[in-house]
Amino acid sequence: MKDVAARAGVGLKTVSRVVNGEPGVTQETERRVRDAIDALGFRRNDSARILRKGRTATVGLVLEDLADPFYAPLSGAVEDVARAHGSLLVHGSSGEDPGREEELVLALCARRVDGLVVVPASTDHRYLEPELAAGIAAVFVDRPPGRISADTVLSDNYGGARRAVEHLVGHGHRRIGFIGDHPRIHTAAERLRGYRAAMAGAGLPVAGAWTSLGSTEPARVAAECLRMTTGPDPVSALFTGNNRVTVTAVRTLTAGGRPVALVGFDDFELADLLSPGITVVAQDPAELGRRAAARLFQRLEGAAGDPERLELPTRLVARGSGERPPAG
Amino acid sequence: MKDVAARAGVGLKTVSRVVNGEPGVTQETERRVRDAIDALGFRRNDSARILRKGRTATVGLVLEDLADPFYAPLSGAVEDVARAHGSLLVHGSSGEDPGREEELVLALCARRVDGLVVVPASTDHRYLEPELAAGIAAVFVDRPPGRISADTVLSDNYGGARRAVEHLVGHGHRRIGFIGDHPRIHTAAERLRGYRAAMAGAGLPVAGAWTSLGSTEPARVAAECLRMTTGPDPVSALFTGNNRVTVTAVRTLTAGGRPVALVGFDDFELADLLSPGITVVAQDPAELGRRAAARLFQRLEGAAGDPERLELPTRLVARGSGERPPAG
Repeated sequence: MKDVAARAGVGLKTVSRVVNGEPGVTQETERRVRDAIDALGFRRNDSARILRKGRTATVGLVLEDLADPFYAPLSGAVEDVARAHGSLLVHGSSGEDPGREEELVLALCARRVDGLVVVPASTDHRYLEPELAAGIAAVFVDRPPGRISADTVLSDNYGGARRAVEHLVGHGHRRIGFIGDHPRIHTAAERLRGYRAAMAGAGLPVAGAWTSLGSTEPARVAAECLRMTTGPDPVSALFTGNNRVTVTAVRTLTAGGRPVALVGFDDFELADLLSPGITVVAQDPAELGRRAAARLFQRLEGAAGDPERLELPTRLVARGSGERPPAG
Repeated sequence: MKDVAARAGVGLKTVSRVVNGEPGVTQETERRVRDAIDALGFRRNDSARILRKGRTATVGLVLEDLADPFYAPLSGAVEDVARAHGSLLVHGSSGEDPGREEELVLALCARRVDGLVVVPASTDHRYLEPELAAGIAAVFVDRPPGRISADTVLSDNYGGARRAVEHLVGHGHRRIGFIGDHPRIHTAAERLRGYRAAMAGAGLPVAGAWTSLGSTEPARVAAECLRMTTGPDPVSALFTGNNRVTVTAVRTLTAGGRPVALVGFDDFELADLLSPGITVVAQDPAELGRRAAARLFQRLEGAAGDPERLELPTRLVARGSGERPPAG
């Protein structure tokens, strides 16, 4: 700051006023101070570099909810890969709102991220076409893009759900309920499809009252859990469609003291320490993030070829809740 | 892209080559294409706007580990406040490495974030002084800054820890161990201070073997937990210094079948569903994030005055593990 003041021929206080945008400085003085700042490189300023080089060493990650524990290891893995490539990570949460996703993605593009990893809320990504044409790379993770073609990394949601329900059938259950997320969400729709396939494969009917897709808000999930397990013709087992649903179902079933069998999609911390332990179909969210980010940097480094779709396997982890026999 | 091609008098393929940085275009053609892009605003480009206006509508958040569940609600809250102010959030994890924190913070400043929320790993933030002088706002959260003065939002770590240990003393414990994070971390040091104050207040000695500060890696914590509870002269209760330590201690004690009393610092999901439920001193990480981000935007909107230090209260939540009497 002293050097700036000396070069501009003003006092330290004046330099401070200019950089902090305080009043009391003439336009001419402000210009002299700013010229001195520029000349001395007082403040690193990447904007000029960005305009010159066309790369910002920043990548964006848009996901559903930064506070959802499923996304913490996914975000952490994307950040690790970005750091290994010398890039910073810009984050945004869509809150499952397609409009907000588009707004966020375009805001990140406007800030000239080099590329994007997106867990989409939207089912129509044609809004991204001009950005992709302009050279931004995008990889979709957890859910595929809609109406455009792009690199995608998914879990085997259909196969994992099918396996979960077959496991319950194998332990003697014939009446199995499914509580999941909104059916417009790819993962929820795929898990419902897996549930139906397993039931059909076992020759079991599915009553309309046994499936419930919608918000994962605890109030809705708890009400549906109670309805399915305490009605006149209750299910003896539940398949829960993601970690948010599973946690609420465990809470509700525990409070009611009901020995309903349960298999959840997604593993979660402490699932093994509950009584009984919770049987889950585990995804690997860190691996989803790692693969998506690795693909993004391959594209940024010039990898050509058509978009690829990678599907990671899931695995069933039996811990007790899914091995309970039907009550009575 | 068609408009750009027409204006520049070239084919679509040439435009694509230029925007994707592919070879085979003369300098003169590239210049014509770039001029056409600029003229047509083909790609939104905030860099020019940043240079002009001096604000980027981006704030940075540097924390310890994006994958730690304690930071998920804190990050989510900072993002919510940023969004309400029309700002994007850029994230980085220091991994508890002071050098990486500095590197990240300066990289964010170089990208001209308007302000920063920092969970510091470093204990010397004089490296930030030129940035602060240049007008960047910074708020520290969870831990205070070192060797500079800045707005800070903390939990009452000392008081919360003291309360936790007094609770165990109140349930008849005289031999109480403490396992915590590295003592160079402010929160760990404060919680140790609270532990010592409660023991001294109750007239209880603290054996050297009863305190263990260091990495929160499960292997270290499990070994220390075993050592303290199964040695020749074991403790009857443990105070665990954060959610990572608590989860490992619960796992270790459950595996060993030892009825050791336990109070943990930090609440965590499912703590109430374990058997027994885990008694904790709960912080409010979302409120920490909200208050820090709110303070940041007050500063960005011109709030003057000396740096402020805000300390949020903690609360003890009794669930069973902390109310066990001493064994035998």
